[in-house]
Amino acid sequence: MARSVQPVIGIVGGGIRGSMFAAAVRQHPDARLAGICESDDGRRTRLAAELSVDTFADLGSMITSVPELTALVIATPDFAHRDVALLGIEHGLDLMIEKPLATAVDEARAIVAAAEAAGTMIMIGFENRWNPRFSAVRDQLAAAGSPVVNQVINLNDTRFVPTSMLGWAGRSTPGWFLMPHTLDLACWLSGASPTEVYARGRRGYLDARGVQTWDAITASFAMSDGSLLVLNSQWILTESHPSVFDFRYELHTEASSYYFDIADSGVTRYDSTGISRPQFGVVDGPPLTGVPIDMINSFIDRLNGVDLELPDGRHGELITRAIEAVHTSVDQGTPITI
Amino acid sequence: MARSVQPVIGIVGGGIRGSMFAAAVRQHPDARLAGICESDDGRRTRLAAELSVDTFADLGSMITSVPELTALVIATPDFAHRDVALLGIEHGLDLMIEKPLATAVDEARAIVAAAEAAGTMIMIGFENRWNPRFSAVRDQLAAAGSPVVNQVINLNDTRFVPTSMLGWAGRSTPGWFLMPHTLDLACWLSGASPTEVYARGRRGYLDARGVQTWDAITASFAMSDGSLLVLNSQWILTESHPSVFDFRYELHTEASSYYFDIADSGVTRYDSTGISRPQFGVVDGPPLTGVPIDMINSFIDRLNGVDLELPDGRHGELITRAIEAVHTSVDQGTPITI
Amino acid sequence: MARSVQPVIGIVGGGIRGSMFAAAVRQHPDARLAGICESDDGRRTRLAAELSVDTFADLGSMITSVPELTALVIATPDFAHRDVALLGIEHGLDLMIEKPLATAVDEARAIVAAAEAAGTMIMIGFENRWNPRFSAVRDQLAAAGSPVVNQVINLNDTRFVPTSMLGWAGRSTPGWFLMPHTLDLACWLSGASPTEVYARGRRGYLDARGVQTWDAITASFAMSDGSLLVLNSQWILTESHPSVFDFRYELHTEASSYYFDIADSGVTRYDSTGISRPQFGVVDGPPLTGVPIDMINSFIDRLNGVDLELPDGRHGELITRAIEAVHTSVDQGTPITI
Amino acid sequence: MARSVQPVIGIVGGGIRGSMFAAAVRQHPDARLAGICESDDGRRTRLAAELSVDTFADLGSMITSVPELTALVIATPDFAHRDVALLGIEHGLDLMIEKPLATAVDEARAIVAAAEAAGTMIMIGFENRWNPRFSAVRDQLAAAGSPVVNQVINLNDTRFVPTSMLGWAGRSTPGWFLMPHTLDLACWLSGASPTEVYARGRRGYLDARGVQTWDAITASFAMSDGSLLVLNSQWILTESHPSVFDFRYELHTEASSYYFDIADSGVTRYDSTGISRPQFGVVDGPPLTGVPIDMINSFIDRLNGVDLELPDGRHGELITRAIEAVHTSVDQGTPITI
Repeated sequence: MARSVQPVIGIVGGGIRGSMFAAAVRQHPDARLAGICESDDGRRTRLAAELSVDTFADLGSMITSVPELTALVIATPDFAHRDVALLGIEHGLDLMIEKPLATAVDEARAIVAAAEAAGTMIMIGFENRWNPRFSAVRDQLAAAGSPVVNQVINLNDTRFVPTSMLGWAGRSTPGWFLMPHTLDLACWLSGASPTEVYARGRRGYLDARGVQTWDAITASFAMSDGSLLVLNSQWILTESHPSVFDFRYELHTEASSYYFDIADSGVTRYDSTGISRPQFGVVDGPPLTGVPIDMINSFIDRLNGVDLELPDGRHGELITRAIEAVHTSVDQGTPITI
Repeated sequence: MARSVQPVIGIVGGGIRGSMFAAAVRQHPDARLAGICESDDGRRTRLAAELSVDTFADLGSMITSVPELTALVIATPDFAHRDVALLGIEHGLDLMIEKPLATAVDEARAIVAAAEAAGTMIMIGFENRWNPRFSAVRDQLAAAGSPVVNQVINLNDTRFVPTSMLGWAGRSTPGWFLMPHTLDLACWLSGASPTEVYARGRRGYLDARGVQTWDAITASFAMSDGSLLVLNSQWILTESHPSVFDFRYELHTEASSYYFDIADSGVTRYDSTGISRPQFGVVDGPPLTGVPIDMINSFIDRLNGVDLELPDGRHGELITRAIEAVHTSVDQGTPITI
Repeated sequence: MARSVQPVIGIVGGGIRGSMFAAAVRQHPDARLAGICESDDGRRTRLAAELSVDTFADLGSMITSVPELTALVIATPDFAHRDVALLGIEHGLDLMIEKPLATAVDEARAIVAAAEAAGTMIMIGFENRWNPRFSAVRDQLAAAGSPVVNQVINLNDTRFVPTSMLGWAGRSTPGWFLMPHTLDLACWLSGASPTEVYARGRRGYLDARGVQTWDAITASFAMSDGSLLVLNSQWILTESHPSVFDFRYELHTEASSYYFDIADSGVTRYDSTGISRPQFGVVDGPPLTGVPIDMINSFIDRLNGVDLELPDGRHGELITRAIEAVHTSVDQGTPITI
Repeated sequence: MARSVQPVIGIVGGGIRGSMFAAAVRQHPDARLAGICESDDGRRTRLAAELSVDTFADLGSMITSVPELTALVIATPDFAHRDVALLGIEHGLDLMIEKPLATAVDEARAIVAAAEAAGTMIMIGFENRWNPRFSAVRDQLAAAGSPVVNQVINLNDTRFVPTSMLGWAGRSTPGWFLMPHTLDLACWLSGASPTEVYARGRRGYLDARGVQTWDAITASFAMSDGSLLVLNSQWILTESHPSVFDFRYELHTEASSYYFDIADSGVTRYDSTGISRPQFGVVDGPPLTGVPIDMINSFIDRLNGVDLELPDGRHGELITRAIEAVHTSVDQGTPITI
C-alpha cells in the first residue's frame, strides 16, 4: 500500500484505550502517529515517558503543533466526544470515535451534520465487528438467509469497572457503557434496526457506594424485521467472576441457533485467589495484535483509500438515539419509538 | 404415616403427565388410586391395558363410580382446567392442578372462589419447587438476605413440542406453556411479586406450519422489590438441540450470582444422530422417582395432614393474571399492571 | 414388603458416612437400626446426643448388647475393614462394606473366604452405581452393544480432603481413596475387567505438609475386551475449585461417546469467596435422599429377599487386587498383571 | 525489516497445509515465494490455476529452476520428510518442517546431523506455541515457578480425518499424527522432558474399514521433573462431534490448575445437521491470519535475522524419539526409556 502521503493520526485521550491506539498507529507501516492529547498533567507526563510519544494538553495544541495532522482517534470518556469531534471536523480531520458516538442524540446529530458538511469521514469504534467469531457468523447468517426470530444478549461487568476502573462511572450507566456494543452487534448480525424500546432499571448498590447510576438495565427492542431483541447489562457482578466482563449472546433464526460466550477464552485457571479466565483480546507483541488493533488497522486502510464497509456516523447516531431511548423508557415507564 | 382413611385420588387427563401421576399415586403407601379419566376412546383403552388401571370417560363417571373419591390430579391441557376443577370442588374434592391454574384470569378466579367457598384445597403443579437445585438456592438466598438485582430466565422448547408432542399447541403459546414455570420460580426464589409487565412476541414459523401461535415471547417484569425480571421463551429451537427443552436461569443479588443450566444433566452423548443430553428428571424404578413424583408425594402428604408450604390457588391465580398480562401487553404494545 | 422379621442393622464407624448410613437405616420402614460402633469417646458421646442413637465402643459390645443383630454397614477407614468384617461374619452377619473392600489383597481374600464359608452376604459400597447418570448410560451401552474403545476417568479432590477432612490420609493414597470408585464404574459400564496395569505416582506437596502419601497417581489399564482405561486421581487441587471433588469421565465406543461431568450440578454460584457448585448428591429431608441412601435401600431390599444385582465380595476383591497392582506398579516401575 | 536480500522460500507438498503456507509466504512483505512442489499431476495443475503460483513436480526441479532459493517449508506427509529435508540441506537451504520431524528416530537423526554439518537452520512446525492461550500460560507458569504435578492431554480427531481427509492414515497412527503436538506442548509449558513412556493401543474399527492402524493410543510418560504426563489420542470420534478435533488439556502445579478446551471457540451452533463449533484458527483475509500464519511469520523473521526461540531440530528429534518409544511400548508391552 505505497502512498506518497501517509495519514498522520492524533490520539485524543490518554487512558488505557488511547495508549493502546497510539501503539497501534505507531506500529502501522502506512500511518504516522502525531501524538496523544491528554488534559491530566500527571498522566500526560507519564505517557510521554513511558511511550516516548509527543503529548499535548489539548487538541488545539496538537493541531497547532502538527499542521500535517489528517485524522484523529477520539478515546475520551463517553460523554466527552462532541467538542473534540467538532474541533477536529472544523480542521478537516477524519475521525475514529470510540463507541458510543455521543451520550445525547443532539450531540450525535451535531457531529454527524458537521462531518457531512465538511466532507470528512467518521468511523465509530464498534470493535466487536472485528472479532472473527461475530464476523464469521454474520457471513453464515447472510448466506443462509433464514429469518431471525430473537436475540438475547447479556453484557455485564464486575463492580470493579464502575467503582475502580472508571473515574466517571457516575456520569455514565451500564446502558451507555455496555449496550452500544451489543445493540450494534444485534443490528450488524441481523441486518435489522431497532424501532422501539421498553426498558427498566434497578439501582441501589452503586448509589450506596457514591456512584450515582443504575446497577442494571434491561431493554426489550422491537426490530424492523419483526424479530425480538433483549439486552441485559449490569455493572455489579461480584469480582470473583472469572473475568471482568461477562458476555453471552444468543441469536436464533428459523433455521439455526448460535450461542456465544465471548468471555470464555477456552482457558480456565484456579489458584489460591479463585477462578480466572485469561483474556487474549489484545496480545502484546511485537507486534501488538487483537480485535481493537484490527479495527485501527481498518481505519488506517480506509484513510489510505481502501474501500471498506465501516460503522459510520449515521449508524453511530442511530445507536445513540436508541440508547437514549432506553434511558428515556426507564425514566418514563413507557415504550419509546426510536 | 398410619391413617385409618387414605386419600383416594383420581387423575383427570391420560396423557404423558397424567399416566405418570397415576403411577406415582399407585406406588404411594398412603394413598389409593381411583383411576384415570380420559375422553379419547383409543387412549383410554390403551391406558386400561397398559397400566391395569380403572378408566373413565369423564370425571362425572368417576365420581359416580368411586364415591369414596377425595382428591383429583388435573392434568388436562392448559386451557381445559376450569370445568373439571369446578366439578371436583362441587363434590368436595381437593385438587392438584397442573400449571397454569387456567389460561384466563376469570377462569382462575372462578376456581379459587369456588374452592374457598367449599373449603377444599388447591395446589398448583409448579414442580420446579421440588428440584433440589432451586430449593437449595432458595434456602441460601433466604439465609443471605441480600437484595435481588435482576433475574434473566430462558426456558425454550424445540419445535418438536408444539408441532409433534402437543396436539393443542395452537390453543396455547410459549407464554402459557413455559412462562408459568419460570415466573413461579422467579417469585419463589426472590420472594417478590410481579407488578407490571411489558412483552413482545414474534410469529411466523409456527403459523406457516399450521400451528397458529407465537414462535417466541419476551417479557420484562417490574418486581415488587424493585428488581428486574426478564423471561424469554420460544418454541422453535431446532431439534438438533441436546434436549427437548433448554432452561437457563440466572439470578443476581448484591452479594452473589447464581447460574442454572437445568437441561445440562452432566452427561453429554454423541452418536451418529448428533448430540444428546440424557435427562434424569424422572427415573423409572421401581419405584418411579423424580421431581414430579416428589411433588405428588407432597400433595399426598398434605392430604394426609402434613403441614407443608405449597403453591396454592391464590398464587396460581396471580401467575395466571401475570401471564395473561404478558399476552395483553404483546397485543396492545403497552406495559400492563398486574 | 411385609416381613415378620426385619433386618437389624448396626453401623461400624461413626464418621460422616457412618452417621448418614445410620440415618438412612433408621428412616427405612423395613429395617431396624441397632446403633453405631465408634471407638472415639468424644465422637461417640456426640453421636448419642445428636442422633439419639444407641452407641457402642466396639463391635463386640454391639453384638453382645443386640443379639438380634443381622447385618452391618462397615464405614471404618479404608484400611480398617478386615477385623470388623471377620468378626461380623463369625457371628453370621451380612455386610455392606464401604469401598474399597480392603487395602491389601490378602485382607480382601480373607474376608471373602470367610463369608463364603459362613454363607453370609457381602455387598461393597460402590455407590456410583446408584447414580442414575451412570446406570442409565450402562443400560444404553448394553442395549447398543458397540465395542468400547477407551475410557479416561479423572477423579480428583482438593487438598482439603487429605489435609483437613481425613485424619488418616497418610495411611491411604489417591489410588486407594478415589480409584476404587472409578475402576468399579469402568468395569460396570463396559462389562470388561482389568487384566494389567502400569502406573506412576508423583509426590512432594503432601509429604512436605506431613501427610506422607502420593499427590497424584495415573494408571493405565489393559481391559479384558481389548479396550483402554486410564484413571487419573490427585489429591491436591487448590481449594478454589468449585467443589471439593472433580469427577470427569469419558467413555468411547465405536458408535458413541459419553462425557460425564459429575461435579457439575447445573448450578454455579459466585460470591465474595469465589466460585462454588452446590452439590445435591445427598439432600436432607425428611426423608434423607440421594445416591448413597438409594444404595443402603438396596442393601436393605436385598436383606429382605429382593433379587438384586449388587457389587459382591468377589468383585470387591478384584478391585482391591487391581488397586494394589496400581501401587505395586508405581513402586516397581513395571506393568503388573492383575 | 529492510533487507537487501529477502529469503526465497519454496513449499514442498501441495495439500491443505502446503497451500496455506504458500499463501502466508506470498503475503509476507519480507519474503518471496518460489513456488510449490507437488508430485500429483492433477493437484499440481489445480494449484497452479487456483493460486497462480509456480509449481514443480519435485524439489529437484524447483532447485534447478529457482537457483536463488534459500529456504523450504516441508509439508509432505508425516513419513515423507527425510528425503526432501536431506536434499534441501544439501543445497544449503533453511527448513521449516511440519511436525513430526520424522516418524523414525534414525530419519530424524539423519536430518539433524546433516543440518548441523551444513550449518543450516531447522525449525519444527509445532504451531500450538503460537496459540496465545498456550504462550500466555507458559509465561504465567514460568513467572510463578510452582512445581508441575501432572498433565493430562486429550487430542482426538473424528473418524473423518483417517478415513476421508488423509490419504495416508494407514501409514500413520493417532500417535504420530496427534501426539507430537501434545508432547511438544507438555514439554514447552512445563520445561521438563520425557524420560520414559508406557503406552497401550486399541485397534479394530479402522482396521475393519481398510485403514490399518490404531484406533486409539494412551501413553503415560515420566517427566524429568518428577511430574506425570498422560497423552490420550484417538482417531474415531463420531462425526457428530462439534468440530473435527477435540483438544482438552489440563495442567496442575502445586499452586494452580489450568484447563484448556481448545476446540471450544466460544461459538456453538445448532442447525438441522446437528451441533457445530466454528473454528477461527485460520481466518481468511486479506490478510490470511491465524496461528499457523504467525508461525510462518516467525520462520521468516528468523530467516531475516531476528533472534527468536524456535523449536529446533534437536527438539524435533527428541519428540520423534519419544513418539517412537510410544509405539515400541505399545508393541512390546514394556516401559521404554526415551
